[in-house]
Amino acid sequence: MRALELSAYDGLKALKLVEKPVPEPKAGQVLIKVGAAAVNPSDLMFIRGRYGFTKPLPTVPGFEASGRVVAGNGRYPRWLVGRRVACGVQGGGDGTWAEYVLVEAMSCIPLLPRVSFEQGASLLVNPFTAWALVEQAGRGRHRAVVQTAAASALGQMVLRLAVRAELPMIHVVRRTEQVHTLRALGAAVVLDSSAPDFDEALARHCNDLTATLAFDAVAGDTPARLLRAMPPKSKVVVYGALSEQEVKLSPGELIFRDQRVEGFWLSSYLGSLSLPGLLYRALQVQRALGTDLQTRVRSRVPLEEAVEGIRGYQERMTSGKILLTP
Amino acid sequence: MRALELSAYDGLKALKLVEKPVPEPKAGQVLIKVGAAAVNPSDLMFIRGRYGFTKPLPTVPGFEASGRVVAGNGRYPRWLVGRRVACGVQGGGDGTWAEYVLVEAMSCIPLLPRVSFEQGASLLVNPFTAWALVEQAGRGRHRAVVQTAAASALGQMVLRLAVRAELPMIHVVRRTEQVHTLRALGAAVVLDSSAPDFDEALARHCNDLTATLAFDAVAGDTPARLLRAMPPKSKVVVYGALSEQEVKLSPGELIFRDQRVEGFWLSSYLGSLSLPGLLYRALQVQRALGTDLQTRVRSRVPLEEAVEGIRGYQERMTSGKILLTP
Repeated sequence: MRALELSAYDGLKALKLVEKPVPEPKAGQVLIKVGAAAVNPSDLMFIRGRYGFTKPLPTVPGFEASGRVVAGNGRYPRWLVGRRVACGVQGGGDGTWAEYVLVEAMSCIPLLPRVSFEQGASLLVNPFTAWALVEQAGRGRHRAVVQTAAASALGQMVLRLAVRAELPMIHVVRRTEQVHTLRALGAAVVLDSSAPDFDEALARHCNDLTATLAFDAVAGDTPARLLRAMPPKSKVVVYGALSEQEVKLSPGELIFRDQRVEGFWLSSYLGSLSLPGLLYRALQVQRALGTDLQTRVRSRVPLEEAVEGIRGYQERMTSGKILLTP
Repeated sequence: MRALELSAYDGLKALKLVEKPVPEPKAGQVLIKVGAAAVNPSDLMFIRGRYGFTKPLPTVPGFEASGRVVAGNGRYPRWLVGRRVACGVQGGGDGTWAEYVLVEAMSCIPLLPRVSFEQGASLLVNPFTAWALVEQAGRGRHRAVVQTAAASALGQMVLRLAVRAELPMIHVVRRTEQVHTLRALGAAVVLDSSAPDFDEALARHCNDLTATLAFDAVAGDTPARLLRAMPPKSKVVVYGALSEQEVKLSPGELIFRDQRVEGFWLSSYLGSLSLPGLLYRALQVQRALGTDLQTRVRSRVPLEEAVEGIRGYQERMTSGKILLTP
């Protein structure tokens, strides 16, 4: 089979198309013929060694895909053979940027007939994360929520889910033109973090709306700025680190304003769900894939053109995803 | 009355004994004739402007004391007149390092007859915090707990409460001689953070005992070191910042290991309790003041000798408290 193989944690220039043997499923695993594989910001961090973990090299990147199950080892895996699924690669094995990928049967989500491979390729990382974040706002009875990187694919999903749930939000973007994009989607409050009065405006809106929860994908000094603007007893959930910086917090904010910071990782969230809980959410998320949780696909590229395609995506991530279609 | 007045956030050299008028209670307040006033690390940070907030200058420092209520404005305040109480100063007014202090009646805790003014002067800041921290370990069903600054007065209280509750703990100290002090109190695991193999030893013990909660009074890079050593889904509660440094965290630890950091502040904890909840704990804490929650008093100094006395305390904080006895 053809696969994109990473020979060093050195980004796109260390990524090459190679021929490899099609792997065989071990107990509990299924082999999937990839229909479409997603390219997410987490993949771009992974190939530069900036993700939370590395795998032994060489390795095939790609954390999610959709496809058809063509082989299975074990009872449930064999039951899945022939079915269309969305899947995520967790452990240390090869990823989805290839013609075939091995995954644990338990990390496959059977696709509804109406969900295409293209839609299913971006089912887990963004839609499920957006769903889980907005769910958290409801569970914690937060009256309003802030999010950074609001113009990202995931940010726009959070925005649409929040509009539907009538959850007031404050959206933070990093470029002026993104303000209009989000307003067009129904966002009431959009703040540009490059504006000189950003911190005051953020504090004013946080207090007006009682925004006590924030979703942050930036890290660095952003969680501290959010906490400073938010009322006492607020929480920042860090789910990404686009700044690639350490999170820096004032102990005074934590202590005297009783605030907190925690991480969110999809794998860990999925692992915390019961099987019925997972399947219920999988159904809800798939039903919203055509609307609130829609992923805008900018282009589909075969593996041969992947390096060029990903380079283009990297330069302008908010103008739509690219999918690898082996 | 005589009072110690701070003229600048410049530490002990800006602290002078002055004569001031005895203040009069406003609605809801009581006037207390101070029996003994505590000197805590938080006071030392406050007088250098390194606490979470400052007050308009000049001001009288001191966050807690014991004494007798001599006047009250309002029904409940007047009911308190004549009673012996422990009290904490919260808002922006003058503190306890004086002959008299005004406090909100609701922040007074009536003392049991067996509790002396000396014991009552250190009822709130350390014993109540220690109680609240250990209570948190039980409520969160943590199997084991780590604490830093374990040789401090508060750390030793936490240690004794944990020994009694049969809660396994890992105690972290900053000097070798403190290891023996804590062993003598019944601590099973004491680690010296200046040892070259500290991080490995900490990780080994955290995993052996499944320590998923840590109490940290140091801040800076300490919460990140704790999180790195602890299992996934662990939490660090920051209640102090002895290093006077920002808390620096790796977003990867937060995200991929589902960890969290939060602050603890006594005022905010007390404010979250119902009145019966507060009184129940006040009773429990007072009952343990002679044993687990005992404060070792090294010396008692009158206001005239306070500056010299506090200077000595500052140099060797773990060898016992000093009390100001106007």
